[in-house]
Amino acid sequence: MRELGEFAVIDLINAGREQAAHVLLGPGDDAAVIAAPDGRFVVSTDMLVEGRHFRLDWSSPVEIGRKAIAQNAADIVAMGARPTAFVVALGCPADTAVPVITGLADGLWTEASRAGGSVAGGDLVHSEQLVISVTAFGDLGGQAAVTRSGARAGDVVAVAGELGWSAAGLAVLSSGADLSAPAFAHALATHRVPRPPYAAVLDLTGEVGPTALTDVSDGLLADLGHLAAASGVAVDVHSAALADPDLAAVARSLDADAAQWILAGGEDHAFAGTWAAGTSLPPGWRPIGVVGAGSGVTVDGTEPAGGTGWESFRGADVTPTGRKR
Amino acid sequence: MRELGEFAVIDLINAGREQAAHVLLGPGDDAAVIAAPDGRFVVSTDMLVEGRHFRLDWSSPVEIGRKAIAQNAADIVAMGARPTAFVVALGCPADTAVPVITGLADGLWTEASRAGGSVAGGDLVHSEQLVISVTAFGDLGGQAAVTRSGARAGDVVAVAGELGWSAAGLAVLSSGADLSAPAFAHALATHRVPRPPYAAVLDLTGEVGPTALTDVSDGLLADLGHLAAASGVAVDVHSAALADPDLAAVARSLDADAAQWILAGGEDHAFAGTWAAGTSLPPGWRPIGVVGAGSGVTVDGTEPAGGTGWESFRGADVTPTGRKR
Repeated sequence: MRELGEFAVIDLINAGREQAAHVLLGPGDDAAVIAAPDGRFVVSTDMLVEGRHFRLDWSSPVEIGRKAIAQNAADIVAMGARPTAFVVALGCPADTAVPVITGLADGLWTEASRAGGSVAGGDLVHSEQLVISVTAFGDLGGQAAVTRSGARAGDVVAVAGELGWSAAGLAVLSSGADLSAPAFAHALATHRVPRPPYAAVLDLTGEVGPTALTDVSDGLLADLGHLAAASGVAVDVHSAALADPDLAAVARSLDADAAQWILAGGEDHAFAGTWAAGTSLPPGWRPIGVVGAGSGVTVDGTEPAGGTGWESFRGADVTPTGRKR
Repeated sequence: MRELGEFAVIDLINAGREQAAHVLLGPGDDAAVIAAPDGRFVVSTDMLVEGRHFRLDWSSPVEIGRKAIAQNAADIVAMGARPTAFVVALGCPADTAVPVITGLADGLWTEASRAGGSVAGGDLVHSEQLVISVTAFGDLGGQAAVTRSGARAGDVVAVAGELGWSAAGLAVLSSGADLSAPAFAHALATHRVPRPPYAAVLDLTGEVGPTALTDVSDGLLADLGHLAAASGVAVDVHSAALADPDLAAVARSLDADAAQWILAGGEDHAFAGTWAAGTSLPPGWRPIGVVGAGSGVTVDGTEPAGGTGWESFRGADVTPTGRKR
């Protein structure tokens, strides 16, 4: 970085990129201009810090870039919106190798494209730690935003996407196990690049949608707890519906608890929603519990024993799984 | 931070805040929803890193928060757009005192309000350095964006706002001079909280606007250089029009060069624009040069001797003023 400088690296990052149709004016001016055909836009921002949210010895720059976009795109989709564009501020040490930066950029662009958008602009500054700050935008297409507050007693709780596999991948990486073992491949891949099932939400056009929706970023119980609090309801999760024999096999080989990964792991960026009773769930969704009157989240009718998920600064207090996110 | 944890501090930061009218859904869900009445929105993002863009022993948390918003709002206004909302991702060490965070938040909110918007959401994570990543949004009100590429030979170059005072403040702080000296008060205040003259652009309704516009963030010559390159023109700046006797007095007392602060200092976040010849400049704007055929930026017809402004990672190469931004 020190040799090329900010402007040359920015040129390198942006060379040959094609902006999504929503990006009316891309990088190179004081600001970008993005289409908001709906007259509103949805926005979410997340910061990823080296050593805390990712490690360069555990993931490639491309994987880190993809993960940074995926977790933000999942927030946009969790509002029922279609991702349109992203901006990315990047802080990095002066001795960062340029291929790290171009790899990150490639990952950012790959996942932005997968989510339906592009990287419309950014900032590149000098910092001691590698820090990636992504802001994501989406369009609601004239529909109401699907918030966390619409769940009603009697609704079915359903999930789209995998749960626990990212936590399993982190456990594998932390364990010193043989990373080349085929049994660990899916867990490692999921931890390195979560694959939010965008289509499970975005293809709902014409179907009956969820009454409330969130992405599972902090942990299933934690995120359902936020949803329950916002909606003024209680949620009970059925552990049998969450069982995953393949994940259980990984857990056994590490002497770990798959149920804890499923209930308190979060970085898979699955979607959790509530649906009016009697709704036939659309493709990709599976029932995992019910909404009742009251407050809080229970598992099979009882208070969860382990932690419920991730909270920054207090990580160790709430994540007995040892997640470092 | 460690004692309260992420969620309690977020509650503390957001308590009692009133969102601007453009913010349709504020913090607390997966994402925020912002009005874009124009069917487009303008977006800019900047990252500020402790020790590089600010120092807690040189500025209060409130001042740092204000500066973080001001420099982003200036980018929005420099497109001819009216700021509507901001999102802020904050990384901070676990031993950060909570009043630092609440002070930052107060500063963010104060300047957001001054610029016409509010803080619609954010992220709070654990990092080794204090890092503030602001993304700003604006609405063009049906007008075309004013880019850097519209300058034409024969246009007048004009500036709104002060130049060099932020660089002077940094020089005062770096010099070990008596910070309480009244002669330094304005320089220090400007460095700590730049005051972009938003109204000089936003009140142009009905007036003939600039053909090209930018904010002065990297340094006057550097930013005019970007504008000249984007427009395919040359810019000549008249040093006599930039002279500032008050700033010269500060420079003399530090044995520094006021002209260099004016030409290569940037963080005042003044606005520089080009106007068709014969336009009567609106209030707040003063002519400082002319646009010609060719390329590059000259001062009184000759190549500038000193540096032209700031570039991350290569700071020392291009800023003989010793700016640490």
